[in-house]
Amino acid sequence: MTDDIRLARIALGHLIEPGSRDLGIIVNRVGPVEALARLIGGRVPKRLREQAAPRLRAFDPVAVAALALDRADRIGVRIITPEDEEWPAQLTDLESISLDVRDPIERDTYPPHCIWLRGPWPLAETLDRSVAIVGSRASTSYGDHMAAELAHGLAERGWAVVSGGAIGIDAAAHRGAVAGSGRTVAVLACGIDRPYPPSNAQLLARIGEEGLLLSEWPPGADPHRHRFLVRNRVIAAASQGTVMVEANRRSGARFTLKRAHMLNRLCLAVPGPATSAMSQGCHDEIRDRRAVLVATVEQILDSVGRIGADAEAPPLFDLTPRDRLDPLEARVLDGVRPRKILTAEEIAVAVGVSHREARRTLPALQLAGFVTQVDAGYRLPRKSDTA
Amino acid sequence: MTDDIRLARIALGHLIEPGSRDLGIIVNRVGPVEALARLIGGRVPKRLREQAAPRLRAFDPVAVAALALDRADRIGVRIITPEDEEWPAQLTDLESISLDVRDPIERDTYPPHCIWLRGPWPLAETLDRSVAIVGSRASTSYGDHMAAELAHGLAERGWAVVSGGAIGIDAAAHRGAVAGSGRTVAVLACGIDRPYPPSNAQLLARIGEEGLLLSEWPPGADPHRHRFLVRNRVIAAASQGTVMVEANRRSGARFTLKRAHMLNRLCLAVPGPATSAMSQGCHDEIRDRRAVLVATVEQILDSVGRIGADAEAPPLFDLTPRDRLDPLEARVLDGVRPRKILTAEEIAVAVGVSHREARRTLPALQLAGFVTQVDAGYRLPRKSDTA
Repeated sequence: MTDDIRLARIALGHLIEPGSRDLGIIVNRVGPVEALARLIGGRVPKRLREQAAPRLRAFDPVAVAALALDRADRIGVRIITPEDEEWPAQLTDLESISLDVRDPIERDTYPPHCIWLRGPWPLAETLDRSVAIVGSRASTSYGDHMAAELAHGLAERGWAVVSGGAIGIDAAAHRGAVAGSGRTVAVLACGIDRPYPPSNAQLLARIGEEGLLLSEWPPGADPHRHRFLVRNRVIAAASQGTVMVEANRRSGARFTLKRAHMLNRLCLAVPGPATSAMSQGCHDEIRDRRAVLVATVEQILDSVGRIGADAEAPPLFDLTPRDRLDPLEARVLDGVRPRKILTAEEIAVAVGVSHREARRTLPALQLAGFVTQVDAGYRLPRKSDTA
Repeated sequence: MTDDIRLARIALGHLIEPGSRDLGIIVNRVGPVEALARLIGGRVPKRLREQAAPRLRAFDPVAVAALALDRADRIGVRIITPEDEEWPAQLTDLESISLDVRDPIERDTYPPHCIWLRGPWPLAETLDRSVAIVGSRASTSYGDHMAAELAHGLAERGWAVVSGGAIGIDAAAHRGAVAGSGRTVAVLACGIDRPYPPSNAQLLARIGEEGLLLSEWPPGADPHRHRFLVRNRVIAAASQGTVMVEANRRSGARFTLKRAHMLNRLCLAVPGPATSAMSQGCHDEIRDRRAVLVATVEQILDSVGRIGADAEAPPLFDLTPRDRLDPLEARVLDGVRPRKILTAEEIAVAVGVSHREARRTLPALQLAGFVTQVDAGYRLPRKSDTA
């Protein structure tokens, strides 16, 4: 790859907000270098030309891109583009998701131009086995507990946990993954040198050292509201499935789940108390069958895992000796009393089976210790019987 | 209807345990009087003949039936059979549910021969608008709360609540319905004169006065384990849908839900904390899409109710003024700072929209009070701006 291409992609990312379908289509057709030349020269459709105009008047995109690259280098941030081996190929799926052209945000679904990255792992390989855990910032302690537990369990089993670096569920998921000695990936909606939100500064710094911090916006970019929604598509596309842990009806996490749905990724949601407003969004998604209910790590792996390799057998309840009786034995045993001694015939009358069935079954029940024979009849065993 | 038919059905109920498909088919073909004659005379298939033999040796079924009828009369219990107007026609659906012939319990799915009944309401009419609420006996306080709340809400809206009269979820559901001044129906697995379980004696007595107590077993019958499973099919068949509130993996309530599923009744389940063993059964049913998640009375009615008549519109969250902005306005507003005054051009640069879009949008935002114009620029409003 030439530096021209890399520089052009960075410049494009500075000129037009990420996700633009208008620009993405041109880049796909003529390549980033020519697309940049056309954008600078105004040889693009009007909407795109007008969107770029204020920024083109404000700065020289190529010079700014070169500066950003220098700055990133100095602060230990690398940049990757679709030309790099480290680029996650699954992001290309974003090109094909359905469109509601009346809504500008719905149009902002194209893959990133480039990704700014900090952390010791190769991105594509890390995301190859990854699950997104998302949810509300205003989480409850139950939600934080579930996010951390699930992330911890996934990390322990070698799965990377992707989230948005926000407070609440995101932070709990990142922390759980770190505690599980796993890789965690924070996909930010601002420059990765911006410790946003400030209360997560320490956590984000740690993720930058032990996991991966990434952003489509260049270093220094502000965390605009709009960017959070646009960013969510990357969380959904990067991972094999998205688990929503807690979300009220209007949580942005539902937007991530919607994207996962459009991308045919697995959509999973954790239930909570029916009385909890913070679980309403999860319950709605499960109820409307857009998301599959998951309550344990095993259930997540059962959904996203390669069958056999990661999924464990569903836990069985312990069978009691009584559970192992066949239905006839269980039914005959129903008729045996604790104190009153009953004959096989009387037991047959009590439970409505044939005499032969009662006669055939009672010795087996006696042998297995379920009944005690006394003279010509049967009763339930007492402790003293075994003495 | 002649007394012969009624007496024959009662006698059949004494001879063969309820649910027998073998017997049900014969009764359907030749009627209850002739079926009884054949059973007494041994002119039925071997399995049926042998099942009836011990009881035929123990008592005269017609005499016992007449005695039971007398006794019921004395204790204020009435009996209904398929010939009565009060008989719930939907129980006939039990004839057609699929069979696993290797499992005797799975064969015990035929409709009752007769129903012993106590309470002031006509049964068929009461069940016409009814929902079953079922769950574990070892319920948590959360489960009891949900069962009572949902039953209360259903009762208030004129729906009868059907359950099994057991401790735990059943008792909470019955109590909630009574508190909601609604009809509640307890379907017992023993004689309706037996206060079983004893701890529910008061509740059952009250249901017998204000709701309906019913059983397919004659007065005096013992509560055998097997009978609870057989009884569950009636709970599922009688109501329009079954709501499982709390159930561990091995709860009998799952058997009721299974029957509801086989009967094409609505299967609903209430979620709970993912960490609660008592919600595992519910989560499994929802996860495997055998049950629909319900968290509120409205959601139950949305599933079982006649659309429009009972279902309420799903509650919307309150829109904030900011929610009402169109996406472009919201995006431009993202670029306006609290203190620093920015021109329309600078705002366009910040958020990546065209100059024209920013210029067009900012006056509308100002008019709506979202931004304040200062000289040639804009910033977010302060309290002092309105003074």
